[in-house]
Amino acid sequence: MNNNESHSKWLSSVAVDVVIFTLRNQDLQVCLVRRTTEPYSSYWSLPGGFIRSDEALDDAAFRQLKEQTEVENVYLQQLYTFGELHRDPRHRVISVAYFALVSADKLSQNCLTPSDSLAWHSVYELPEMAFDHSEIVDYALTRLRYKIEYSAAAFELMPEEFTLRELQEAYMIILDDHKLDKANFRKKIRDAKIVEPVSRYIQTGGRPAKLFRFRKDAQLESKARRFFP
Amino acid sequence: MNNNESHSKWLSSVAVDVVIFTLRNQDLQVCLVRRTTEPYSSYWSLPGGFIRSDEALDDAAFRQLKEQTEVENVYLQQLYTFGELHRDPRHRVISVAYFALVSADKLSQNCLTPSDSLAWHSVYELPEMAFDHSEIVDYALTRLRYKIEYSAAAFELMPEEFTLRELQEAYMIILDDHKLDKANFRKKIRDAKIVEPVSRYIQTGGRPAKLFRFRKDAQLESKARRFFP
Repeated sequence: MNNNESHSKWLSSVAVDVVIFTLRNQDLQVCLVRRTTEPYSSYWSLPGGFIRSDEALDDAAFRQLKEQTEVENVYLQQLYTFGELHRDPRHRVISVAYFALVSADKLSQNCLTPSDSLAWHSVYELPEMAFDHSEIVDYALTRLRYKIEYSAAAFELMPEEFTLRELQEAYMIILDDHKLDKANFRKKIRDAKIVEPVSRYIQTGGRPAKLFRFRKDAQLESKARRFFP
Repeated sequence: MNNNESHSKWLSSVAVDVVIFTLRNQDLQVCLVRRTTEPYSSYWSLPGGFIRSDEALDDAAFRQLKEQTEVENVYLQQLYTFGELHRDPRHRVISVAYFALVSADKLSQNCLTPSDSLAWHSVYELPEMAFDHSEIVDYALTRLRYKIEYSAAAFELMPEEFTLRELQEAYMIILDDHKLDKANFRKKIRDAKIVEPVSRYIQTGGRPAKLFRFRKDAQLESKARRFFP
């Protein structure tokens, strides 16, 4: 960079946009907020907005989440930076996209109750969205699927304790694959050493089902599944 | 975002910085350029610089690469956006980091010849670098290692044709693991179905070695190695 060049022509607006995933009602859902100003007034959009010049990117993502959805203390990860030229019709805006994973039982009733300004939507039935936010959700979903296949990240979406059947259902919903073989799934979960039984059972229609929890020493990015030795 | 808010306080400088990896001299190297202006004048840094308000992020990365290193037509991928507050002592600069993979035989002699302003450095013996560029190289190296274990991306660093021994050496250099078991490595490469023999051999010290090439239908992000079914 050359100090003699005019500074202003190099400036851009930078925003963060957050795809918040949760599992509820046998569905994978994202939290959307309704825009009240142009452009795309009244369209659903991802929670987010411009970063302040005095805050780090991650802090901006946490702030926007809290201000717009009351969601806090969640697993948050940077995803991708969207920088095409005309993604905002007003002026150049670069968006740093994040995704957040949150267990539905950690969300407040206020946050879960749909309103005109905020609602959870199935990723399989999204409304028309502002800007390139549909594309951002698609990208986040691809990364989420990849992540749960290679790591223990799915546990961020589960309650503290769960049955293996519930865990399998979560995988089926996220992967949109309702034919996961039960025996094969349980073997893989066992081999990955990421869950441990708690000494409790819950009543189901049939015999009581054992409850499990995520092992604290399980790695979110397991090295155990490397393809090459 | 509120249209009534003053626009200027939301503006940031956005840069791209590119970690270009190549394999040469039995080493994994990155291309660095020497800064000639403050701050960090005379320090080595990653090729990169501010994006123009009229260019997309990827285009800015390709432009900076070509202008500063003459490298073009390479595999380029966005890596991560570094947005801590004081990473540049002058003012707020957000850097979108990319990594590029290039086979050394595609680099011009001009680009490979070290000079005061540009040189290839071993990732295992890096000089002190400007800004947080050491951290960016570390991050890129972690991602490169992950990528070659889960995909066929290593081939972007190989010549068109190679022996299995050369491929194994490439993995050992990139992973900094010189104990890879030959039989196990060859079995995994065979199982992954990502190489095919060409009908040529090259002379080695012992018996002639068969030459292979990357299969055109092999996926850079193979689905075949998923952990969950």
